[in-house]
Amino acid sequence: MENSDDFMAKIVALCKRRGFIFQSSEMYGGINGFWDYGPIGVALKRAVEQTWWKYMVEDRDNVEGLDSTIICHPMVWQASGHLANFADEMTDCTVCKKRFRVDQMDDPTTCPACGAKAMTPPRNFNLMMKTFVGPVFDEEHAAYLRAETCQPIFVDFNTIRIASRQKLPFGIAQTGKSFRNEINPRNFTFRSREFTQMEMEFFCHEDESMKWFDYWHEQRWNFYTKILGISEDKLRIHWHDKLAHYAKKALDIEFLYPFGWNEVEGVHHRGTWDMSQHAAYSKQEQDCRYFDQERNATYYPTVVETSCGLDRICLLLICNAYDEDTAATQKEGMDEDARVVLHFAPRIAPVQVAVLPLSKKLEEPATDLFRKIRGSFRAQYDVTGSIGKRYRRQDEIGTPFCVTFDFDSLNDNAVTVRDRDAMTQERVPVAELAQWLRNKIDK
Amino acid sequence: MENSDDFMAKIVALCKRRGFIFQSSEMYGGINGFWDYGPIGVALKRAVEQTWWKYMVEDRDNVEGLDSTIICHPMVWQASGHLANFADEMTDCTVCKKRFRVDQMDDPTTCPACGAKAMTPPRNFNLMMKTFVGPVFDEEHAAYLRAETCQPIFVDFNTIRIASRQKLPFGIAQTGKSFRNEINPRNFTFRSREFTQMEMEFFCHEDESMKWFDYWHEQRWNFYTKILGISEDKLRIHWHDKLAHYAKKALDIEFLYPFGWNEVEGVHHRGTWDMSQHAAYSKQEQDCRYFDQERNATYYPTVVETSCGLDRICLLLICNAYDEDTAATQKEGMDEDARVVLHFAPRIAPVQVAVLPLSKKLEEPATDLFRKIRGSFRAQYDVTGSIGKRYRRQDEIGTPFCVTFDFDSLNDNAVTVRDRDAMTQERVPVAELAQWLRNKIDK
Repeated sequence: MENSDDFMAKIVALCKRRGFIFQSSEMYGGINGFWDYGPIGVALKRAVEQTWWKYMVEDRDNVEGLDSTIICHPMVWQASGHLANFADEMTDCTVCKKRFRVDQMDDPTTCPACGAKAMTPPRNFNLMMKTFVGPVFDEEHAAYLRAETCQPIFVDFNTIRIASRQKLPFGIAQTGKSFRNEINPRNFTFRSREFTQMEMEFFCHEDESMKWFDYWHEQRWNFYTKILGISEDKLRIHWHDKLAHYAKKALDIEFLYPFGWNEVEGVHHRGTWDMSQHAAYSKQEQDCRYFDQERNATYYPTVVETSCGLDRICLLLICNAYDEDTAATQKEGMDEDARVVLHFAPRIAPVQVAVLPLSKKLEEPATDLFRKIRGSFRAQYDVTGSIGKRYRRQDEIGTPFCVTFDFDSLNDNAVTVRDRDAMTQERVPVAELAQWLRNKIDK
Repeated sequence: MENSDDFMAKIVALCKRRGFIFQSSEMYGGINGFWDYGPIGVALKRAVEQTWWKYMVEDRDNVEGLDSTIICHPMVWQASGHLANFADEMTDCTVCKKRFRVDQMDDPTTCPACGAKAMTPPRNFNLMMKTFVGPVFDEEHAAYLRAETCQPIFVDFNTIRIASRQKLPFGIAQTGKSFRNEINPRNFTFRSREFTQMEMEFFCHEDESMKWFDYWHEQRWNFYTKILGISEDKLRIHWHDKLAHYAKKALDIEFLYPFGWNEVEGVHHRGTWDMSQHAAYSKQEQDCRYFDQERNATYYPTVVETSCGLDRICLLLICNAYDEDTAATQKEGMDEDARVVLHFAPRIAPVQVAVLPLSKKLEEPATDLFRKIRGSFRAQYDVTGSIGKRYRRQDEIGTPFCVTFDFDSLNDNAVTVRDRDAMTQERVPVAELAQWLRNKIDK
């Protein structure tokens, strides 16, 4: 088994080299915990986000969409408890000046860096990023970048309920950036300071909430296994044994990253905590309670949340897809020892189809074909280098289908489609190509 | 002609009532200059963003995508000049304590609010939002929320060029949030403090830059007129007569908003300013210059920028689509005096098709139909109220096609499709419905 640091180093290098993900502001030495998505990465990120949005919002009658601002009224974060409690306990070494999270130390009295027994008493460090809105920079004008996308959902619950004419049970979902001033960003994009969340809050009556918890548990598991095609042996459920006082049940879906089992998704029963907190802080009871006609009762909705990180899913997909494949290379008669290949599911592959003319003389008809294909699929065109080199380039970014336009194509109006995984080649009439690809990609 | 304030008040009220756009954190009294998009608004916003992305990135060989972080290295904003110069001149009234932008005052010595001649000397107020990254809140750890999405494009230019194997001329595009601490947010979402930009920077040789400027001028004009379907008499070009010292040409595309002609898009010739600034501040010449094989020369790319605000486009589309329509109402024999209708182009309509069973007894087959339709179009299902009331609800959110499933549908396998604009009704076989809709929506 390869060392996990070496494996991650390969992933990080591939991600930069091929334009998936690289450090933000690299020209200026970078900024720790911030990552940019290049042309291939942004295609992957958008495909996953849209897949989630379709699965969670567009394909459901009982989930509505939202896109709220990153900066909210600061009272939102008082009500949620973030301003008081969203903090890590930190301790400083008075000798080497390094700072550590207490919960990550074996012995909080000894410096993990220099070994000195000279640590300061632990103190809380709040993870919310602070800014100022308006012309004066004082506490009265302080505001915070949201630490999670779910709080604005609670705050907007009633406005959305009325506008959408929904009755309980129903959910509200949003995707977007969140910010956490992590002391120690690490594991590539896994723990970063700026990241994209995809969250859904499902509002229901207390009596039905456990049923809905089980439902969303199943739905979210299916998202990874059936929609994204992740093997079940790389996923597991971690049940929380310590629950928040208001929570009835909570689980994480964990993925076996190269650096170990780690959370990619949480499904949480949040009780009536959120809505009752916002009622207490806003004094707007009517916006936080629900009149249930059938039950002839008014109550705080109980919330079941599903929450995942888009960056963590992209990293999961890249790690899961990565392979070095010697046998296949021999099969195609290439010189190299191994090919690097990403086995992305065709549905979310950043490039789904590559069009490769066998010769520069074929550029005109090949370009015509490419332009048609591009209307329906994420497509790339490549004419430089040997066909083998071009296959390898597409393998590295996980393109499932390479379409080669050769001299015979001019006569038989057919092209050769090479399958990334099986490395088989099939002759497909140009007239049938779009449907052929659609059958493979949508399956 | 209706008063523009009254007209805007109607737009704002409709936007909240139907879940397009409403104030962020309203439950807490709101936060000035921040707006949330509800279920219908987020559908519109996503449709416009995806239309832009397809038009500017996916359909072109010579434009690559990027998704960079909002928080960058602070040196990025020193190089761009934002930290020194991105400021408004402000003056305070020493009597009533109100603050004003000097360039918006007729007489900078007199308070527009209380009339006192007691204004402080003008001073600069920087519009960048400041935060702190890492555990210490001092100037060394200060960082800024990006004020525009284009700067990270310049910083990542070389990494993207290498990864994508592009040669000049080519462009890099991104969409995403930007932040400006506006003193006086106004005109609904037109001037807000948190907003989404869609920008493309096109890198080329100086000699070809004016040709590319003209090309992008035309492309962006076509986006509004041909892709979004805005009438040419509501759009105009405003040529800048004052140019930045490095710029050769600059124009705005303006739209006739209810509150007057205002900029929705800028096309700017930026010369080599951006790349040479980043070279000077980063000392990474090799990341900012380009070796041109054909010309056998190394140079700073010249940049032509296209820049627009997604929120401004959504507001433009809502204002442009809004109508109160008396004649049409009479045609449908409704009691009300007028219907409120949004004439969105079908391509970007938040809901493209509504499925309406004529009776609750038809819910089962109508729901089946709805579920099929929803796979291909943004669709809504509505069974409550008279069919006329349901048409009105769909008119208000701009749904171009209402599909009524009636008792005859059980026998003839056909449905009635009502056209929002012509208010005609056409009988369409269920088997042909998807294709019928596609022809209308994609045209």
